[in-house]
Amino acid sequence: MAGKKAVRCVGVLTGGGDCPGLNAVIRSVTKTLLYDHGATVYGIYDGYAGLVEHRYERLDGPDVSNILTRGGTILGSSNKANPFAYFPPQKIGGKHEPPHDASARAKALYRKLKLDALVCIGGDGTMAIADGLIRRCGMNVVGVPKTIDNDLPQTDYTFGFMTAVQTATEAIDRLHSTAGSHHRVMVAEVMGRYAGWLALYAGAASGADVILIPEIPYDMAVVAAYVKDRYRRGKRFSIVCVAEGAKPRGGTMTVERVVADSPDPIRLGGIGHKVAREIEDLTGLESRATVLGYVQRGGTPCAFDRTLATAYGHHATELVCGRRFGRLVVMRRGRITSVPIQSIAGRVKKVPRNYPLLRAAQAVNTCFGR
Amino acid sequence: MAGKKAVRCVGVLTGGGDCPGLNAVIRSVTKTLLYDHGATVYGIYDGYAGLVEHRYERLDGPDVSNILTRGGTILGSSNKANPFAYFPPQKIGGKHEPPHDASARAKALYRKLKLDALVCIGGDGTMAIADGLIRRCGMNVVGVPKTIDNDLPQTDYTFGFMTAVQTATEAIDRLHSTAGSHHRVMVAEVMGRYAGWLALYAGAASGADVILIPEIPYDMAVVAAYVKDRYRRGKRFSIVCVAEGAKPRGGTMTVERVVADSPDPIRLGGIGHKVAREIEDLTGLESRATVLGYVQRGGTPCAFDRTLATAYGHHATELVCGRRFGRLVVMRRGRITSVPIQSIAGRVKKVPRNYPLLRAAQAVNTCFGR
Amino acid sequence: MAGKKAVRCVGVLTGGGDCPGLNAVIRSVTKTLLYDHGATVYGIYDGYAGLVEHRYERLDGPDVSNILTRGGTILGSSNKANPFAYFPPQKIGGKHEPPHDASARAKALYRKLKLDALVCIGGDGTMAIADGLIRRCGMNVVGVPKTIDNDLPQTDYTFGFMTAVQTATEAIDRLHSTAGSHHRVMVAEVMGRYAGWLALYAGAASGADVILIPEIPYDMAVVAAYVKDRYRRGKRFSIVCVAEGAKPRGGTMTVERVVADSPDPIRLGGIGHKVAREIEDLTGLESRATVLGYVQRGGTPCAFDRTLATAYGHHATELVCGRRFGRLVVMRRGRITSVPIQSIAGRVKKVPRNYPLLRAAQAVNTCFGR
Amino acid sequence: MAGKKAVRCVGVLTGGGDCPGLNAVIRSVTKTLLYDHGATVYGIYDGYAGLVEHRYERLDGPDVSNILTRGGTILGSSNKANPFAYFPPQKIGGKHEPPHDASARAKALYRKLKLDALVCIGGDGTMAIADGLIRRCGMNVVGVPKTIDNDLPQTDYTFGFMTAVQTATEAIDRLHSTAGSHHRVMVAEVMGRYAGWLALYAGAASGADVILIPEIPYDMAVVAAYVKDRYRRGKRFSIVCVAEGAKPRGGTMTVERVVADSPDPIRLGGIGHKVAREIEDLTGLESRATVLGYVQRGGTPCAFDRTLATAYGHHATELVCGRRFGRLVVMRRGRITSVPIQSIAGRVKKVPRNYPLLRAAQAVNTCFGR
Repeated sequence: MAGKKAVRCVGVLTGGGDCPGLNAVIRSVTKTLLYDHGATVYGIYDGYAGLVEHRYERLDGPDVSNILTRGGTILGSSNKANPFAYFPPQKIGGKHEPPHDASARAKALYRKLKLDALVCIGGDGTMAIADGLIRRCGMNVVGVPKTIDNDLPQTDYTFGFMTAVQTATEAIDRLHSTAGSHHRVMVAEVMGRYAGWLALYAGAASGADVILIPEIPYDMAVVAAYVKDRYRRGKRFSIVCVAEGAKPRGGTMTVERVVADSPDPIRLGGIGHKVAREIEDLTGLESRATVLGYVQRGGTPCAFDRTLATAYGHHATELVCGRRFGRLVVMRRGRITSVPIQSIAGRVKKVPRNYPLLRAAQAVNTCFGR
Repeated sequence: MAGKKAVRCVGVLTGGGDCPGLNAVIRSVTKTLLYDHGATVYGIYDGYAGLVEHRYERLDGPDVSNILTRGGTILGSSNKANPFAYFPPQKIGGKHEPPHDASARAKALYRKLKLDALVCIGGDGTMAIADGLIRRCGMNVVGVPKTIDNDLPQTDYTFGFMTAVQTATEAIDRLHSTAGSHHRVMVAEVMGRYAGWLALYAGAASGADVILIPEIPYDMAVVAAYVKDRYRRGKRFSIVCVAEGAKPRGGTMTVERVVADSPDPIRLGGIGHKVAREIEDLTGLESRATVLGYVQRGGTPCAFDRTLATAYGHHATELVCGRRFGRLVVMRRGRITSVPIQSIAGRVKKVPRNYPLLRAAQAVNTCFGR
Repeated sequence: MAGKKAVRCVGVLTGGGDCPGLNAVIRSVTKTLLYDHGATVYGIYDGYAGLVEHRYERLDGPDVSNILTRGGTILGSSNKANPFAYFPPQKIGGKHEPPHDASARAKALYRKLKLDALVCIGGDGTMAIADGLIRRCGMNVVGVPKTIDNDLPQTDYTFGFMTAVQTATEAIDRLHSTAGSHHRVMVAEVMGRYAGWLALYAGAASGADVILIPEIPYDMAVVAAYVKDRYRRGKRFSIVCVAEGAKPRGGTMTVERVVADSPDPIRLGGIGHKVAREIEDLTGLESRATVLGYVQRGGTPCAFDRTLATAYGHHATELVCGRRFGRLVVMRRGRITSVPIQSIAGRVKKVPRNYPLLRAAQAVNTCFGR
Repeated sequence: MAGKKAVRCVGVLTGGGDCPGLNAVIRSVTKTLLYDHGATVYGIYDGYAGLVEHRYERLDGPDVSNILTRGGTILGSSNKANPFAYFPPQKIGGKHEPPHDASARAKALYRKLKLDALVCIGGDGTMAIADGLIRRCGMNVVGVPKTIDNDLPQTDYTFGFMTAVQTATEAIDRLHSTAGSHHRVMVAEVMGRYAGWLALYAGAASGADVILIPEIPYDMAVVAAYVKDRYRRGKRFSIVCVAEGAKPRGGTMTVERVVADSPDPIRLGGIGHKVAREIEDLTGLESRATVLGYVQRGGTPCAFDRTLATAYGHHATELVCGRRFGRLVVMRRGRITSVPIQSIAGRVKKVPRNYPLLRAAQAVNTCFGR
């Protein structure tokens, strides 16, 4: 780092949906900057909302003590705040105002705090805005990717994913009791609107008999025939793990329709109940659905995610202190490295057909609806 | 036991919904009869269905090894089988036949196996049928009560309840992360159609801000005012724990309406989503619901339930060997004892207004919607 | 409460060893006093040490938010601090000074803060000192009992116990894998110096083959014969759950000797290793010991303990506000009530020979070494 | 696979210590061979012991149902059985006989069952013997690596490791309660005789203040100064995570000495208690040790390990069916592939000084005793 301008002051924020491991990244970034670089760290509240509204706090060691094990984010987050199309905070009972460009306010805070860089932790939406802050506002930004769904391109894993897999796996383990005792078909709907990573991992880990993912549009006749065949072989129950975004062959993606109609598609919990009903209709076997929902997002991160998030946070700090701005931390082929932030824009990483775990699940006779 | 006819042969069956601890009772009953009394034990499959259809197996030590920790029941269960109004098993694709009285078949098996007694593990439906077997078929029956909902009268606790409380509590702990990070109202719908035990315990254990139970019809205006007041005091999130059977003041019990319309009320997950929508409408705060569903019924029993089920099974065996038939094992005032089976018929144990945990929850400022 | 002097100001402290649920009591006491009674609450740090050293803080709502789920105590504790025989805090590297009577300092703080009462949460040591504060200093005290070991007299259960049972049960469940795979005898040493509650509950809950408790001095020849007999019946592994204070028949209590030699008997982990070695010597089967140790004291309380601690805290506040001083909250025959604090002095609640769970464990053929 | 001789019959065995995920490999290998290849599968009992003693069973679908979630191995294992230096099974009370070469017996079973290949799941000891079976007996062998310690060369991860990390992390999370409440130093001794992977991962995941690993001989003066400095900054407790094989700078490896003296070094639990005593002596702060022991080896595998073991088992089957014998399944740079079995012989994979998680832990100010 010889010859490079030392980093003195860094901001950090978390955007997008809740995810186990966010606090571990905040802790890792903050402690590394404080103890290893003697820098000052500001936590920006509620993602880009705090950047526009100048809500922040200086973070010291005690602020990030005891947060490694906590789910959520101590900084708060915002799903919707966008400095370039900013909705002013709505008062209770007040009406919505139209959005406007508030990026000058964001830039003003960046200057006021004399930030050398901003660490943005979030998903594709957060990174798209980060890209705007770089290009249009001249900020120095380093990104840390986050998604429960593991569908961000360029990276093998994102933290939070394995915790969600573990939570969903434990839930499906529980459903096994009821399925076996009552000779029922139990359907578990897990997250994953555009990619089936979570359904594949949790399904394979819990020994689900059927796994339905967006990448493989399913044929319900195939599913029903498989369930009936199990019944004939004396297995009077079946476990089905279905991704939120799974869709029938030839059908349109259910969840996209739902998105258009509703601000909260999870609320409708469509696909799990639909699949259960259809299996019951086609097989005559009692079928029940459980939508795992928000439980998958919360709770203490598993050990894997705590270490991954700690390593991600550390690498982000190295990028910041090496003044390698505009980059996103990723894990590629088992190593932590980085790619340009804009390289993930608008793309989704889907489960490839030859993915080893997919092939292994097929080999042990799991039905994917085809 | 001097002078009493020794017990040589006992049947055991599990009826009604899945519940953690059923296997622990089966193990306790079987091992005690085998090792302590040298008796023979037959496991009847799928509740009263196996009794009518003569499906059973002799249970030896190895059959009940390693089942203490397993959820569900190794004997299978049946929600609907009733010897006095018996539906023949439906073939896949076949049509329903009308029910008929098959109690003679049940009695025939009882005689064929030379049973001295039958241990029936189940809820109020199972016990109502057990009462019929006693009165109308002259069988010797001892009952062991089971209900996730803890709403059986005459007993402080039933096994399975505390496991469901623990599972629901851990799920609500997870929702806290998301609620806190996103400043949202998170609603968790737990089981409990007629009584609020599970909602009260899980809500109190997880520090829910609002708990809605069937015993206290709620006023949504009170709930909304409470949530808004929290917001004003800087608490930008709230956790609501609502029992499946909670109902608004002056309203009809939602779940009863649902029952009339559908064979599977849980599928509709009505009340949780309804409450979330109403809170959002009244407060303007983002609100989301999660229906915990079948996950609450499954999985390994917690240590408390394993010990309770073991003690229940042992006491049932003592009743059998003491030839004290027609009795139901219960825990009253902290002690394991028994009551007549028919004494629980058609009654529901509701949470009393002066229940200590209810009063404690009110004292720490939990809102019950009144 | 008409006519009674209102309670305006209450202190709360935690003494003795760490125990899951302490924070739940602190939260319940504080919130009830704040919200239900409009009183002021002071938290005294590090048990009686803070009382003497005038270290305390006023507790408001936010101080006790989010502590329900946390193990340990936010107030800190002290195993040894005694106002009547007070050791001044030792400086790092400094030498011990002799103890003196510092109860006047304790009384001075009580007066300075204008306390109406002090809520002392702790075990028998804490209650013995509380009794001294009542008799010798004229303080108003209400006690809340706490012990992992569940060996306090006058109460069915104390909070923390069931969490320790659950933790120990899960650990023994894990040992089952290794025992079964390697055909080994696995010995788990759990807490319980003077009483075998934890060993009995965790042993029964995990299906341990042998349970050794202080109340039933064991005969190692009986244990070895039992293990060999299992082996002959094809069960090539055995699980032994032994209480820290278990002792051989005719032998002296191991742990008492250890106490004399060492300030930290757990460190030596005597009995578990001793039992494993003897079983290996007598049977020729590979035997291994695991000392569960401090892991049993920590972590988030289970749901049962969170509700029990909340109800205990609430009842303590009712005693305080009803000016029923000098009493200890207890659960008797399933109900929360109270007894005089001095009634527990110097006594240990042991497992009675006819305790239902003990008899149930014996009936399913568990060996108790006799 | 065109032109290749089809695989008709495969044996599978598990050798060495217990490890979560063994059953998941057995299930994956068996189901893939049965359903995907129509082959016959024989499970050999107790590792190489069963191979010599001709103890085995044909495995069908139901034999491997419901084992995915179970710890241990349904086939049993043996730490010591070696066909080339075989100890006959010792009778209870009998004396040891000298070892002899029994490889002809092993070969005889291989021929009798008409095995096309043998899948050996185990650690370096198991693979060294597998290498002998290939070279000296002409068997076709495919290896699947297994080690809790993650110290096998040529592979990024082995299944079982992440479960052990998770178990150790949860235990250390629990110790935090006690450490914080009592202002103590809590030392957790985890597995890892020759490499510090488990201590590094569990220590980083639980936010341990001090991590001691074999790769970095520690200076106790540095550790004590660090702990005292924390105390001065107001952090009155510290958490130390120490690998079984950690050793002081300039000192000899404690565990190696122990190995020479004893067949069971874990029994002595040396290093954890030694470190606790030294810290207490040097700082005057109360220090306590917990040896996590065998609990780390057992229990249901975490979701990560279940998927990894499933994918490993599937790849092993592909090697078998592709007749690529003599190879060991590994994960390299995030991909599942294989290396020659003999390439891991006698080597240990140690934590490199520039390992990202090690550097991240150092950056957040964790003390490694240097």
